[in-house]
Amino acid sequence: MALIVQKFGGTSVGSVERIEQVADKVAGFRDQGHDIVVVVSAMSGETNRLIELAHQIQDQPIPREMDVLVSTGEQVTTALLAMALHKRGKRAKSYNGSQVRILTDDAHTKARIREIDDARLHADLRAGNVVVVAGFQGVDEEGNITTLGRGGSDTTAVALAAALKADECQIYTDVDGVYTTDPRVVDGARRLEKITFEEMLEMASMGSKVLQIRAVEFAGKYNVPLRVLHSFQEGPGTLITFEEEDAMETPTIAGIAFNRDEAKLTILGVPDMPGVAFKILGPIGQANIEVDVIVQNVAEDNTTDFTFTVSRSELARGEEILKRTAADLGAREVRSDSRIAKISVVGVGMRSHAGVASQMFEALADVGINIQMITTSEIKISVIIEEKFLELAVRALHSSFGLDAEPIEDSAA
Amino acid sequence: MALIVQKFGGTSVGSVERIEQVADKVAGFRDQGHDIVVVVSAMSGETNRLIELAHQIQDQPIPREMDVLVSTGEQVTTALLAMALHKRGKRAKSYNGSQVRILTDDAHTKARIREIDDARLHADLRAGNVVVVAGFQGVDEEGNITTLGRGGSDTTAVALAAALKADECQIYTDVDGVYTTDPRVVDGARRLEKITFEEMLEMASMGSKVLQIRAVEFAGKYNVPLRVLHSFQEGPGTLITFEEEDAMETPTIAGIAFNRDEAKLTILGVPDMPGVAFKILGPIGQANIEVDVIVQNVAEDNTTDFTFTVSRSELARGEEILKRTAADLGAREVRSDSRIAKISVVGVGMRSHAGVASQMFEALADVGINIQMITTSEIKISVIIEEKFLELAVRALHSSFGLDAEPIEDSAA
Repeated sequence: MALIVQKFGGTSVGSVERIEQVADKVAGFRDQGHDIVVVVSAMSGETNRLIELAHQIQDQPIPREMDVLVSTGEQVTTALLAMALHKRGKRAKSYNGSQVRILTDDAHTKARIREIDDARLHADLRAGNVVVVAGFQGVDEEGNITTLGRGGSDTTAVALAAALKADECQIYTDVDGVYTTDPRVVDGARRLEKITFEEMLEMASMGSKVLQIRAVEFAGKYNVPLRVLHSFQEGPGTLITFEEEDAMETPTIAGIAFNRDEAKLTILGVPDMPGVAFKILGPIGQANIEVDVIVQNVAEDNTTDFTFTVSRSELARGEEILKRTAADLGAREVRSDSRIAKISVVGVGMRSHAGVASQMFEALADVGINIQMITTSEIKISVIIEEKFLELAVRALHSSFGLDAEPIEDSAA
Repeated sequence: MALIVQKFGGTSVGSVERIEQVADKVAGFRDQGHDIVVVVSAMSGETNRLIELAHQIQDQPIPREMDVLVSTGEQVTTALLAMALHKRGKRAKSYNGSQVRILTDDAHTKARIREIDDARLHADLRAGNVVVVAGFQGVDEEGNITTLGRGGSDTTAVALAAALKADECQIYTDVDGVYTTDPRVVDGARRLEKITFEEMLEMASMGSKVLQIRAVEFAGKYNVPLRVLHSFQEGPGTLITFEEEDAMETPTIAGIAFNRDEAKLTILGVPDMPGVAFKILGPIGQANIEVDVIVQNVAEDNTTDFTFTVSRSELARGEEILKRTAADLGAREVRSDSRIAKISVVGVGMRSHAGVASQMFEALADVGINIQMITTSEIKISVIIEEKFLELAVRALHSSFGLDAEPIEDSAA
C-alpha cells in the first residue's frame, strides 16, 4: 500500500458539501489501505474576504500581519475536513504550517520552504490517521507565521511528498489532466497520460495554468511523482514523469502552449556598440519588469533594432523606461504593440527529431500567418504572432503535429 | 509609566470600524508612554459562523478540531488590530496562543492555563511594540491548539497580566463598570468606584455577568488589579481590589445581585436517618447537575423535608432523578417550582456589621414579600422568593441599604 499526498484547492473545498465530497474520496483511498496526507487550501472566497478586511484598514498592510490573517483560511478547512473524515469513521488530525513544522525563510507573503519536520506526521500515519495539512503556510525560525504566496498549496503538497518520501503527489483540480492544448480552442485536444517534468514546466509557464510552476520545479528537484486529476470526476489524470523514455516511443511533441498576455516593445536605430543589450534591458530589469522573448538584429547602417516582450500589464511602464533609454542612447524610435500572442510547441522528443522548427513554420505559412519573432530552447520553439491569428495557429499546429484525438468510429459502421 | 493589559471582547472588535476605534484607544495609551498588551476576542458573530460550519458536518464535532477551527477567529482580529495600530504609526505584533506560548492542559474546548512564557512578549515590549494576543486559546504540551471555552479571553488577559506582572488588567466591555444592581431594574443603581474581589465573585456568580468568574478567581489568586471599563466611553470604570479597606470606610453592602435562572426541587417526608442528604444529592451530582441553595428541615413525625435549587434548564432532569430517589427512600412526595428567583445582598462590610440579615428581612417584609429559603455566607445573604416579586424586592433592598444614587441637585436652587 502506498503513501499518497493529495492536494485539494479552494474550489474543491469551497463549501461544506464539497468538503464532504473530498472526505468521501479520501476515505475511499483509506479503505484501499493507503496512507494519506491531505493538503488543503482555504475555502474559495475566504482568502479574498480576509484580504478585503485588511484593505479596509490599510492599502498596504504589513506583510507579517497579512500572513497571520490569511493563514487562518486554510486552518479552517483542515479542521472541517478532519471532522468530515471522523464522521466517516476515519481517524484524522489537522495541522497548520507551524504545527507540522514547515520551516520557511522570513519573506512574508512569499516565503520559501527550507525544511519540513516529518516526525509527527509519520507517527500520526503509523497510528492510522489521515493527516490533514494547511497548505500555503509555514513558520520562520522565530516562530512567525509565513505564507508561500498564492497557489503555494501545490508547493506545500510537493514539499510534503518529498519530505515524507511519498509514492505519489496527487494534485486535484478542476481539469482532468494536462491536455495537448486548451480544449476551448481545439476540439480535438487530448488528455496526456504522461508528460515529462520539463514539458510540464514549459506548458505551465506558457499559460496552461494547471499547476504552480514552483511546485513543478520542486517536484523535479526531489523526484516526486506528480499526478494531476479532477477533484470530482473519476479518471487517471496525467502523470508528470522525470525520466525520458526511449526516444522511439516518445512522441515528438507533447503539446501546444500559448499565452495572450504578451506585449512587444521595439527600440529602432540604436547605434551598435558593445553592451547595448545591457543598456536597454538593465533599466527594465531594475524596474522589476520581466522580459520574455528577446530578438536583436543588426541593420545595414551600423545601428541595431532590438525587440522584447513583456507582460501586457507592464507595457506602459516598460515603454516609458525604454523611451528614456532611447533618448540616452540616441536611438531613432520606440514602438509598442499589445496585440500579439505567443505560441509554443513543446516536447522532449524534439531533442532527437530534426525538422520540428521547419514543420512548425510550414504549418503556419500554410494558413497564411506571419511570424514576428522566434525563440527556441532544447524542448520548445516559440513564435510571436498577431493575436487575432492565435486560435487559427493553435489548431493548425495541433493538427500538423498529429495531436488531434482519433475520431471516435461508429462501431456499427 | 505602567504596563497595562487591555482586553477587548467580540462586540468591541465586531467590525473594522470598531477595530479602528480600539486602535485609537490603544494608541492613546501608548502616547501616554504606557507599555500595552492587548488581548482580543473574535469579531462578534465569527465564532458562531465557524461553529455553524462545523455543525453542518457533525452534531458533535471532535473537540480537537473544534479548537483548531474556532481559534482562527481571534487570530484574524489580532492581525487586523496590529494593522490598524501600524496605520497609526505604532509598532505592533500579533501573537496566537501557541506563539506566546500559553501552555494549557489538553482538555479541548475547556482547557486550563498552566504556564505562560513571557520572554518573547517582554522582548517585544522593550522594542517598543504593542503586543496583540489572541484571547481564549492556548496550546498543549504536544503542540495541539486548545481553547479555554467561551469567555476565556478574560482569563487570557488576567493570566497574561499575572505572568507579565502588569500594573493593571483592564477589561473593556459594553458597560462602564460594576453597578450596585442592574440599572434596568433600579433607576438609582450606581457605578461602584471599587469593589473587592470577593464581592465581585459573588456579584458575578449571581448573574451580574460583567466578567468571567474564572478570570476573577485567577486575578484574585495572582493579585492582579482588575478594572472593568466601557470600550467606547470615557470613564474610570470599576476597580476590583484585593484588600479590604478600613472597616470604618467600607460601606456595609456593595450591591444587590439577583438570578432568575433558579428552580426549586423539594422532597417531602423522607424518613430521617444519617446520610439522607448524601442519598438525595449524590445522584444529582453524578448527573452533573449543579445545586445552588440547600435547605433541610426536620419535621415532627421523624421525617425530613429537603429542598434545593438548580438551574432551570436542569429542572426536568433533576426532578426525574429525585423521583427515583424518593421511591428508593420511601419519601412521601416530590415537588418542583420554576417560578422562583434568588436575591443576594453582597458586601465585605457585613463581616463587621451586625444586623444585615435582619435589615434585609425587614425590608422585604415591609413590601409584603415572603421568603422561601435563606442561605448565608460570610459576605452574602441570599433569599429565594417568588419570581414575580423580584423587581420589587431588588428596589426595596437597594433603597434600604442606602445604595440609591443621590438625586442630582439643581445648582441654581
